[in-house]
Order: sequence, then C-alpha cells, then structure tokens
Amino acid sequence: MNIDMIRAAQERLDGHARRTPLLNSPFLDEIAGRRLWIKPECLQHTGSFKFRGGWSALSAMEPEARERGVIAFSSGNHGQGVALAAARHGAPVVIVMPSDAPKLKIDNTRALGAEVVLYDRANEDRDAIAAQLSAERGLTLIKPFDEPQVIAGQGTCGLEIAEQAKAEGIDKADVLVCCGGGGFASGMALALEADAPGLRVRPVEPEGFDDMARSLASGVIESNSRRAGSLCDAIITPQPGDLTFPILYQLAGPGIVVTEDEALRAMALAFSRLKLVAEPGGAVALAAALFHGSDIEGEDVIATISGGNVDAEVFRMALERFGA
Amino acid sequence: MNIDMIRAAQERLDGHARRTPLLNSPFLDEIAGRRLWIKPECLQHTGSFKFRGGWSALSAMEPEARERGVIAFSSGNHGQGVALAAARHGAPVVIVMPSDAPKLKIDNTRALGAEVVLYDRANEDRDAIAAQLSAERGLTLIKPFDEPQVIAGQGTCGLEIAEQAKAEGIDKADVLVCCGGGGFASGMALALEADAPGLRVRPVEPEGFDDMARSLASGVIESNSRRAGSLCDAIITPQPGDLTFPILYQLAGPGIVVTEDEALRAMALAFSRLKLVAEPGGAVALAAALFHGSDIEGEDVIATISGGNVDAEVFRMALERFGA
Repeated sequence: MNIDMIRAAQERLDGHARRTPLLNSPFLDEIAGRRLWIKPECLQHTGSFKFRGGWSALSAMEPEARERGVIAFSSGNHGQGVALAAARHGAPVVIVMPSDAPKLKIDNTRALGAEVVLYDRANEDRDAIAAQLSAERGLTLIKPFDEPQVIAGQGTCGLEIAEQAKAEGIDKADVLVCCGGGGFASGMALALEADAPGLRVRPVEPEGFDDMARSLASGVIESNSRRAGSLCDAIITPQPGDLTFPILYQLAGPGIVVTEDEALRAMALAFSRLKLVAEPGGAVALAAALFHGSDIEGEDVIATISGGNVDAEVFRMALERFGA
Repeated sequence: MNIDMIRAAQERLDGHARRTPLLNSPFLDEIAGRRLWIKPECLQHTGSFKFRGGWSALSAMEPEARERGVIAFSSGNHGQGVALAAARHGAPVVIVMPSDAPKLKIDNTRALGAEVVLYDRANEDRDAIAAQLSAERGLTLIKPFDEPQVIAGQGTCGLEIAEQAKAEGIDKADVLVCCGGGGFASGMALALEADAPGLRVRPVEPEGFDDMARSLASGVIESNSRRAGSLCDAIITPQPGDLTFPILYQLAGPGIVVTEDEALRAMALAFSRLKLVAEPGGAVALAAALFHGSDIEGEDVIATISGGNVDAEVFRMALERFGA
C-alpha cells in the first residue's frame, strides 16, 4: 500500500469520478473559530466517496475475473459505489446489506443494477455470508475498507485536497475525516503525507463507536461493544482494519469523538450554510470542526462530508430539532 | 449590453465567485427521459447565482461612488449577493426587503453586514423607497435584474455552461433557467449565443407568475396580476425588465410554466438524487426538466438550480409531501 497505487488509481478515475470542490462559508468560520473548508463527497457519484474505491477496485481487476462478477458487503454507501462502478464496467454484482440500512440505500443499490442480499446486523456474520456466495459463484469480494485498491481509490480524495489547499494558501491544517473501518482516512493520510505533509488526518467517529480513536490511543486494535444502534449507520464498523490501522497509527493525529446530536446539528448547518445534504455518519467530521474546536490545531481546518445518503425522515428530524 | 461585458465580468469574478460544477444522476435521467445536466448555483457564495451579479456591479463601480455605498431591493437572494460583494469591497450597503421574505434570507443579509430596511410587498413601492434612500445618502442603486453589469455577472454562468457542455460532448440542448425579471436568463442567453450557439435558453416560471412566458408569446411586456403569495419568492417579479425582455425575445425559446407542487417535488428529488438543497424558486427549472419533458427538445437538457436559500420549515414540508 503506497502513494504510487493512489496516483495510479487517480489516473483510472479520471473522467469517471467527480472532482468535488472545496467549499466554505463565513457563517461556519464564525462557529468554528477558524477558517473551515469543506470537501463535499456527498456530491460524488452515488452520494459518497465510496464510488472512488469501487471504481478503483473494478478498474484494477483482470478482465476475466471482472466478467465473472463482484460481491461486496456494505451498510449502503460502499454497496452503491461498487454497484455503479460494476454496472459501468458491465460486471455482475451482488451486494450484501444489513436489513436495517436506510431504505433509500437499499433501493438505490437495487436500482443501480445490483442483486441485494439482506442480513441481520446483530446476529449474522456478513463476512461468512459474502465468503459463501463468493465461493459458490466465483465472484471477487471487494471489501469495504481493508483492501488495497479500495484504499487507493479513497486516497484520490486526498490528492485533490492537497492541490485545493495549496491553491487556497493552506500549508498546515488538520483534515477531519469521517471514519468507520479507516479506508477513507488511511487513503487520505497516505496521499497527504506525499503531497501536503503539513496536512494531518484526524479520524472522527460517533460516540459509542469510537474504536479507531481508542485503538490509536492504545496502539492496538480495539473493538466496539455494540454493532448497531446509531444514526451514523455508514461508519459503525466492529474495529479498525488490519491494513488501515497501521497506516493511521503512523500518520494520523488523535481521533475525535462527537455525539449523535452534534452530527444532526452539523447536518442542519450544512443545509442552511452550504446547501448540502449530509447523512449523519457523513456529518461527524463537520461536527468535530464546528463543536470540538479545542481538540483541533491551527488557523485552518478541513472537514470531509463523506456522504449524503440519508432517508427523508431522518433529515426532517434533524431540521426539526436543529434547523434555525 | 453585449458579450464583451460578460467576458469582462468573468475576469473580475475570477478567484471571487465559485465555478459551480455540472452534475447528473442516472435516476434523474430516467425521470426526465433524456440526459439531464444540473448547474447548481445553490453552491455559489450566498447560496444563489446573485453573487455573480453583485460582484460584477460592485467591481465595476468608480471607487468614489463605491465608498459612498450601495443600495439594493431584493426578496433576499440579490440582497445577500450584493451585501457580501459590498462587504468584501469595503462598501456600505443598505438592502430593502419585503417583510414576508424568508427569515433566513433577512437574517443572513444582516449577518453579512448590511443594513436591512423592510417593506410591505403588497402595499408599498420598493422602487420609491430605494430611490428616496439612495438620494438621501448618495448611495448607488444596484437594481436586481434590469442593470447591465448585473446581467453581465449572471451571464458568466452561461460562459461556464458553454465550456462544461462542450466537455461533455453536448452541442445542442435547451438550457432551462429559473426566471424572475430575466437578469439570469438574459445574461445566460447572450453568453450561450456567443460560445455555444446550439444551446438555447428557456425561461421557467411558477404558475400565476408567468409574466415572461406570456410576454415572449405576445411580443410585448406583460405583467402579473398578483405580487405575492407564492413559495417561489425568489422569482415573483411584477414584469420582465426593459433591458432583459428584448434580449430574451430575440434569443430565448418559449417559456415553461410549472406548478408549485412540481417545484416541491423537484426539491425532494434534488435532495435524494443530488444531495443538494434547492429553494422553491430555484427548483422550477429542474421541475420543468423532470415533469415537462414534452415541452423540451433534444437528447440532452440542462437545468439551473438557481438558489438554495429556503427556510427549514418549507424544506421539511417538501420532504414530508414528496420525499420518497
């Protein structure tokens, strides 16, 4: 896993993934107490950064394996990213999803042409389900984060941030990244180490699912006690990945943990100040930038909005509770 | 009023206004029945294309006049655009707003540093109020649409679309533009005539406020009977402008009229499919692309989302009624 793989992924993604802008708002700067820059990956194809990793993985496969097809397990965003990337490569695709994933994500994944297999997040083992289907049908498994070509794809977002920060005259800043298994954060960390060494990744997680923050603090991989029960469905993974953790242990700053209410408040502010739709798990980094300023260093901070695939009902609730 | 003024405005806006992307979604293509491209000016500074015209006007002023200050009347978006452009030029600014404008727009305009003067949209004449304040304080009036440098600024969006359409291989398409007084539509029409003659502006208005569509059909300027009472507050103007109408009469295709419910449905789809916040008046062009396909020609259509400054309550209502 190295920077050359990320640069190669960037070439394969060129013309297929969107280059998302770097946005800001004077109103958000005031709340954050510093200049706050937002990288809105909710505007990426399929509504999250996951399309980058999906395209990277599909485009790196041998043609014969790609023709047999791919399989992925996902709370929804990885599944959509892989589904669209597979469809555009003409590859069959099965997505294994938890039955409590937002309906919008399940529907979208099907509409993108994937066969969806549902499982019970609390009692079933998604790895076992995916492994069995994979063996039966000769499908290649595309893991959601602990997979080199997926990490390489997510890292392309870091290459863009390095360029965009330079254009804005930012040479030193924390880069807050919404963190589940760490694929996005570790890809970003490798990209920034190479192209913008003054920018440092800080993984952000929701309260109760702070396995990465605890693992970074202790130096060994720690697990979450719960496996479900958060609005931040996109980023509740059992534990950091075997590939992602060592990268982040070496390159990232301390993790930041936000409450679910802070994520919902950040969603309401992204609505009013950025005109963007963020999902709860995609808003935790923005929440950290806005409400955990004392944990952050420097005059600038960059926060990813990693995804926007939220059901209308949850979004309405966020606006009802925290909309101005 | 000519293309050179638009190119000059583009130079003055460079590095100050955002170049918004051109987005799409396979789900929206399916509803529209053709390839649908969206130009999201809700992502522009202050949440609408109006910042372009505001910056263009302020940056074109003589320094002495700019130091005395500017005044604008506005339902909210033009006011915010002028307020931010004035603040960044260090110019004093007064904004005259209808008392029934969305609270968010009034609050934002004040927070951007402007003095806000409210008036009753049904019974008071905003032109008279602005003219009096202008005379008393030596302020330069920046009209919302019938003003050459404002039209030039809005036209820069058309120059961007011309480039972006070419990059996507689109050489012939209707370009649907949310239309109030016609400043955005006429600037776009001039820009497209010069740089993308196969692209044709189609003004889009809400039912009951279709003065531009009727004027284009009859060949003379026609007025609306009502002056208030639409959720599409951003684009309910009494009648087309003396400068904007002749440009559109020469260059634009027929107007398209959508219902308020169609605008709300388009808002819900921009939420779920584009992760964008559109205001009702900013969603009428998308509504036309999605629900009035039989009025449109060609395999591609381009629709502006002209603004995203909507109160949380109205947005929640749109999602409650039309969110999947």
